[in-house]
Amino acid sequence: MLATATIRIGCLGLCLVAAGTCAGDYTPPKTAAELGLMQGEPPPLEKRVDQSNFMQAPYNRWALQHMRELVPTREVPRGSGAPTPLEDNGQDLDDFTVPLASGRNLSVKRWLQESYTDGFLVLHRGKLVYERYFNGQTPGSHHQMFSATKSFTGTMLLMLADEGKVDLQSPVREYLPELKSSAYGDASVQQVLDMTVGVQYSEAYTDPNADIWKYGFVFGIGKAPGNYRGPLNIHDYLVTLKKRGQHGEAFHYVTPDTDVLGWIVRRVSGQNLSQFFSARIWSKLGAEHDAFYWLDHGATEMAGGGLNITLRDGARLGQMILQQGRYNGSQIVPRKVASRVLQKGDPVPFNRFYQDPWYEQIGYAYHDQWWTFNNSHKAVSAIGVHGQFIYIDPEAQVVIVKQSSHPEAESISNEVDGPQIMHAIANSLMERDSRANG
Amino acid sequence: MLATATIRIGCLGLCLVAAGTCAGDYTPPKTAAELGLMQGEPPPLEKRVDQSNFMQAPYNRWALQHMRELVPTREVPRGSGAPTPLEDNGQDLDDFTVPLASGRNLSVKRWLQESYTDGFLVLHRGKLVYERYFNGQTPGSHHQMFSATKSFTGTMLLMLADEGKVDLQSPVREYLPELKSSAYGDASVQQVLDMTVGVQYSEAYTDPNADIWKYGFVFGIGKAPGNYRGPLNIHDYLVTLKKRGQHGEAFHYVTPDTDVLGWIVRRVSGQNLSQFFSARIWSKLGAEHDAFYWLDHGATEMAGGGLNITLRDGARLGQMILQQGRYNGSQIVPRKVASRVLQKGDPVPFNRFYQDPWYEQIGYAYHDQWWTFNNSHKAVSAIGVHGQFIYIDPEAQVVIVKQSSHPEAESISNEVDGPQIMHAIANSLMERDSRANG
Repeated sequence: MLATATIRIGCLGLCLVAAGTCAGDYTPPKTAAELGLMQGEPPPLEKRVDQSNFMQAPYNRWALQHMRELVPTREVPRGSGAPTPLEDNGQDLDDFTVPLASGRNLSVKRWLQESYTDGFLVLHRGKLVYERYFNGQTPGSHHQMFSATKSFTGTMLLMLADEGKVDLQSPVREYLPELKSSAYGDASVQQVLDMTVGVQYSEAYTDPNADIWKYGFVFGIGKAPGNYRGPLNIHDYLVTLKKRGQHGEAFHYVTPDTDVLGWIVRRVSGQNLSQFFSARIWSKLGAEHDAFYWLDHGATEMAGGGLNITLRDGARLGQMILQQGRYNGSQIVPRKVASRVLQKGDPVPFNRFYQDPWYEQIGYAYHDQWWTFNNSHKAVSAIGVHGQFIYIDPEAQVVIVKQSSHPEAESISNEVDGPQIMHAIANSLMERDSRANG
Repeated sequence: MLATATIRIGCLGLCLVAAGTCAGDYTPPKTAAELGLMQGEPPPLEKRVDQSNFMQAPYNRWALQHMRELVPTREVPRGSGAPTPLEDNGQDLDDFTVPLASGRNLSVKRWLQESYTDGFLVLHRGKLVYERYFNGQTPGSHHQMFSATKSFTGTMLLMLADEGKVDLQSPVREYLPELKSSAYGDASVQQVLDMTVGVQYSEAYTDPNADIWKYGFVFGIGKAPGNYRGPLNIHDYLVTLKKRGQHGEAFHYVTPDTDVLGWIVRRVSGQNLSQFFSARIWSKLGAEHDAFYWLDHGATEMAGGGLNITLRDGARLGQMILQQGRYNGSQIVPRKVASRVLQKGDPVPFNRFYQDPWYEQIGYAYHDQWWTFNNSHKAVSAIGVHGQFIYIDPEAQVVIVKQSSHPEAESISNEVDGPQIMHAIANSLMERDSRANG
C-alpha cells in the first residue's frame, strides 16, 4: 500500500472520496447488496463481479469478501484445537469523536462509514471492547488483507533469521541464485525487508501502465493484452526486475520485494508459504477459521498481498505480536522477533522519497515489513490498500483490526484519518483504565 | 462422464492404459510426488501444474487433490455440528480377488493400483470396513468429483419438485425464459434430468474440437485461442446450445444439461448452488469438512462437475441416499426422492445411441442424473471421469466411494472393471453377513 499519488491529493481527495462530506447531508456508502452486485441467478451483466473487474470500485465492494470465488487459493489450516476465546468487555464507541489535524471532528461511526469499513474490532488488554460489521460481512467472513499480508511474510522471515537459517546481511543471491542478475541479487535480505532496494518499478495504482499491473497479470488481475508474452508466475516475474540506483538509500514501496522474502522462506524451509504459516503461526494461534492465500497462475502464494482472514483471527494475530509473540499458551513468534517488529522505524530513509505533509503529520515509517507511526505510543501496523489494518499499540495494550472495501487503493479516510482515530481510541481506553485504577 | 470413444477401444485400451498388465511385471503408477510434480520452490518448469495443463496426465495426478489452488471455488459450509461418526468394522480386502468377465482374476489391491486410485472406502451397514489412501491423499484431502457432482444436482432438483416448486413435465423455458430459443427451451425438466435432450453437442474427450472443450473455457480449462469471442460464463454459454433431433428419444450424455438443472435450482430457490446444497444437505449430514464447488469466470458453480469433497464425506452422502434420505438423526432428502434415485434406469432410450458390448455387459443406464447397473442388486452410482464413484448397493447395504486420478477420462479399469469389482465386494460382504447370521 501507500504509494504517493493519491495521498498527495490532500483535502480535495477527502471531499471527492467521501462524497457529501463537505455538504453535511451524508449518506453512507452503498453495500454490495444495495448496489445489486451478484444479486440474481444470474446477476445482470453490469452487476457481475468477475476476473476482469474485481479490483475496481464498485465491484471490489463484493469481491474483497469473496476472493476464493474469483482466484485460485490455498488453505492455511487452523489445526484442530479450540479457538482462543475473545472475552467480551463491550463498550459503545460509535459516538466517540476525534478532533482531526484537518480541523474536522469525526465520530467513529461516521469514520467507519466514510472509509467503507466491512469489519472493525478493538481489543483492549486482550478483551473485545468494540466490534462492528457492515456490507454483509459476518464473524465468519474471510476478507482480503492486501499488503497487511507483508507484515506476516516479514515476520516469518525474521523467525528463520532468529533460528540462524537466514543471515539478514547476506545478499539475496545466496538464497535465490535465480535472482543473481536481477535487482535483488546484491541487495541484502535486510534491505528487502525494509524496502530500500534500488529497483526499477512503479506502484502508482492510478497509472494503468505502472509495473504493479504487470505484477497483477501474474495473479490474474485484469486481462493481459493478447500479445502479452511476459511472465505469468511470480518466480519468472521476479527474475525480470532490474536494478536502478543504490540499495539501502531510500524507502521505495515495491510489493514484489515481499514476494522475494516469501520465496526465501519457501526455499529455506522447504515448505510452501501456507504450510509454513500454518505450522509456525496459524495452527498455534487458536484461530477460529482456516486462512487462505491467493495464488498465482503457478499455484504460488502472493506473499506481498494474498492473505485472507476473518476479522477476529486478525485480532488474534495482532494480540500475539502485542504479547511479545506469546499467545494461546505458547511462544508462537520468538520474543526477540516480536520486540523487533514493535520497534519504531527510521524516518530518514523513509522520508528521502516520500516528502508529503500528510505522511509527515502521521509520521509514517517502515521496517521489517511493518509500518510504524510517530505517535506517542509508538504503534505499529500491518496495512493494506482499500483500508486493511492490524494496528498494534503496545503502550495502550490495544489491537485494532479494520477490513474495508474503499473504492480507492489509498484514501485520506483510511491512511490519514485512520491512524489518528485509532490512536485516539487507544489513548482513551488507556486513560479510562488508568482512571478506573487510580 | 462416459462418452463412447474410449470405452470402445476394448482390451487394447486395457493393455495400453495399465502398462505392463499384459506382461505380468506390474509396477504401480507413480504418485504425484514420485513424478516430481510441484516439488521444489519453485518446481522445475516441466513439473509445474497450472491452468494450462491440470486436466491432462500426468498433471491431473497432482491437480485432482488441489483444485482450489488452480481455479476459483466456493465453500459449501458443513455447519457447526459434530461429524457423524463412521464406526469401524475393519476387514482387509486387499487380496479379495474377482473373476472378471474378460477372464482376468483381479485383486482389489491390484485394481486400486491399476485404476490410479487416490482414495477408496467401503461401508457395509453403515460401518467402515475398508479404507485406503494413495498418492498423498489423506482423510482430510478434498478430491475433485467431476460428474459425480451431477447426481447431487439432480437430487437437489428432485427435492424442489417434491415440494411442488418445479414441475418435471414443464418445459425448461418456464423456469429459464433465457433458454427459450436454445435446445432446452421446449425440453421437459425430466428430459434434462434423464439426458434425453436433443442438442447439438459432442462430449468426446479425445477430440480436441469437441464442444466439451468450449464448455471448458467457461471454467478456465485450457486456454481459449486469442481470437476466441465466445462466452466465458455458463449462463451465456447455455444460451448458445442449439437443438438437434427430438427430445426424449435417446440418451445423450451432455454435461451442460446438468448446468441447466443447476440454474433451475438457483432460479427457483433464490440461492446459489453452494448455499442450497449446504442448507439442504451438507450442513445436516455431519460432514467432517466443508465441501467446495469449482466456479466459472462469473463465480457460478459448475453444477455438471465441480464438487470437491473428502472420501469419508462422500461415504456419508452415499449412506444417506442408501438410508432413504434419513441420516444423522434427520430426514435430509425426502424418502420419495431417495427411493426414486435408487430405482433402476430404462435401458431402452439408453441403448439407442450407446450400443457397446462393454456397456451392455455392465448394463449401464441413466435416470435423474444417476447411473444404474443391471446387476442382481440394482446398484446405482454417481460417476465422474478419471475414476470417481459413489456406488450404492441397496440390496447388500453397501456404499463404496472411489476417488482417482486416472490418466484417461474413461478407462476399462474404472468404468468396466470397477462396477464388476464393486458388485463382487458388496455381494461378498452380504454373503459373509448372512452366513454369520445363519
